[in-house]
Amino acid sequence: MNPDLAPAWLQKQVIAELDWFLSRRRAWLARSGPELSVLLDVLGHYAYGGKLVRPTFCYWGWRAAGGDPHEPGVVRAGASLELLHASALIHDDIIDASDRRRGNPTAHRTFARMHRDRGWRGSAEQFGASAAVLLGDLCLGWSEEVLRTCGLPEQTVTRALGVFDVMRTEMVAGQYLDLAAQADRTTSISASFEVVDLKSGRYTVQRPLQLGVALAGGSPELADALAAYGGPVGAAFQLRDDLLGVFGDPATTGKPVGDDLREGKRTVLLACAYELAGPSGMAVLDRLVGDPTLDQAGIAALQEVLRDCGADQCVEALIAERVQGGLEVLKSVPIREPAVVAALADLATAITDRAV
Amino acid sequence: MNPDLAPAWLQKQVIAELDWFLSRRRAWLARSGPELSVLLDVLGHYAYGGKLVRPTFCYWGWRAAGGDPHEPGVVRAGASLELLHASALIHDDIIDASDRRRGNPTAHRTFARMHRDRGWRGSAEQFGASAAVLLGDLCLGWSEEVLRTCGLPEQTVTRALGVFDVMRTEMVAGQYLDLAAQADRTTSISASFEVVDLKSGRYTVQRPLQLGVALAGGSPELADALAAYGGPVGAAFQLRDDLLGVFGDPATTGKPVGDDLREGKRTVLLACAYELAGPSGMAVLDRLVGDPTLDQAGIAALQEVLRDCGADQCVEALIAERVQGGLEVLKSVPIREPAVVAALADLATAITDRAV
Repeated sequence: MNPDLAPAWLQKQVIAELDWFLSRRRAWLARSGPELSVLLDVLGHYAYGGKLVRPTFCYWGWRAAGGDPHEPGVVRAGASLELLHASALIHDDIIDASDRRRGNPTAHRTFARMHRDRGWRGSAEQFGASAAVLLGDLCLGWSEEVLRTCGLPEQTVTRALGVFDVMRTEMVAGQYLDLAAQADRTTSISASFEVVDLKSGRYTVQRPLQLGVALAGGSPELADALAAYGGPVGAAFQLRDDLLGVFGDPATTGKPVGDDLREGKRTVLLACAYELAGPSGMAVLDRLVGDPTLDQAGIAALQEVLRDCGADQCVEALIAERVQGGLEVLKSVPIREPAVVAALADLATAITDRAV
Repeated sequence: MNPDLAPAWLQKQVIAELDWFLSRRRAWLARSGPELSVLLDVLGHYAYGGKLVRPTFCYWGWRAAGGDPHEPGVVRAGASLELLHASALIHDDIIDASDRRRGNPTAHRTFARMHRDRGWRGSAEQFGASAAVLLGDLCLGWSEEVLRTCGLPEQTVTRALGVFDVMRTEMVAGQYLDLAAQADRTTSISASFEVVDLKSGRYTVQRPLQLGVALAGGSPELADALAAYGGPVGAAFQLRDDLLGVFGDPATTGKPVGDDLREGKRTVLLACAYELAGPSGMAVLDRLVGDPTLDQAGIAALQEVLRDCGADQCVEALIAERVQGGLEVLKSVPIREPAVVAALADLATAITDRAV
């Protein structure tokens, strides 16, 4: 977790809400079959290990609409977004065949190891992926349940669930576009940006803000104004993520560097490189991007190409431009409390200028 | 579809509700990216091809509680259960690595073929499974959305969503137990029955009935009484499914015979065989059950063992016993309209005495 994003008290309360809900579900599952507890064990670092970006934006959306700073219901709603995100990550890790997440083995790898440790029959890999599909499904259902039962008035919760509907559809649609772009070897910057917008721009910042506004009964005008701030800031968040995936420190990010390159993920960073690289750089890109056997030397060679052609600086400029755009919009968002405006301004910088 | 289960008018209306919702989602997705329409294309026979067992029980639960026979909201709620089931089947087909469903290629196979047809990069199988995971996720979210927006009064919908929460958690928990039992080579009848209860007994009959009761604002007493009918009838439904998986006609069931044997699925049928078979039969079971290369001759050999030891008759007896038990309970369920009691009695027989 990164204390720069979520205030410490909010972190603590979101964790407490997750604890409360998940311990009840653990007890329920244990009654249906003792071996079901393992699902909760594996869920652990997915549900609890995040930076709480979405609950934080949900909270500030709520505050922007004049919501009570100490209302526990909005924290519970925020916790639901952590479960939604956990579900997305568990399935994403299967899709990307990732080994590690937040410094721990991914869910499908953990289930596969359990299968081997117990000397079970059949393919450990197939079992691992299957169990992880089911765990993600469980978590996806629970996320909506937590939001719906967050304890705020039914009318505002109904509005918030409408935002949630859009959010989960966009999230999955973005993941599919990402997957198809990767298979299709898209090199277009605009196509990569479509994925960034759908998958992260909206899902990470814009929709959580709108969810908070809806929960507080805020006006559609406020929701729209905040969306105009959240769109570019969310896109900048994803662009930073792409840079960290290639140039980040695994000790800090908790996942190996270069996975995106090995998978051939169609990031804006990569699209910039295809735009900017000369013939020799292009040859390296063509040879190494998406090579499943890519090793440290290959990653280093690609890092060099990305740096030499200026793709990293290009993405840095895109990040700065988007943050600046978000901050500009923020000035005219009708928020009464200056502290809320300041928090949103700080967040725009904090989530796009991070090492984790 | 099987006209014996759902009345023709109900079939027509459920399909119309699905059409209405999915065509709106199709338009929405097409606006976000034209290549997203393929998700709806692949969803087709999963969403529309079922026997509508769950919408039918939901409807009769509603009627048992005195609900208006012509209320469209309960049909819409029923349609949501078809989407929930479609999601479960799409993910289940990945888990079981199944080739066919309802006479068509499974979702992951269809996506894999698309990948190959387009000459895309990377593993077509990995792409197929990934896209199918995402399609199931989409459908899982949509099922809840359809139920929540079914148009019935908020108070009863909230109660119904509580049943839905339990239902989707049980469904996934049951699938996990099924998977673990298969990997662990369970041969115990009671362990196999646990899976049947959780995965099908409740999910197919009991919960849809309770959902209908909740939507109509029926009493908890009625819900409990119907659950006591639905539990055994739902279990009998699954036992029939297990028999059809081994002895059914693929032309009628739409899926190859023997898949369960090849996967080593821990059905009650198989547990009965382990209980009843003599040494030579047991040797055949040990050698062939769960053999991924199992061919027609192997399937025939296993069918012979299952018949010779009387496992099929044992399961037939269990089915009859459960249907009888359900019908016995039904006599004392406090339902005013005799036509509703008659419909539930007919259904108990129809869903357990079917060839599809």
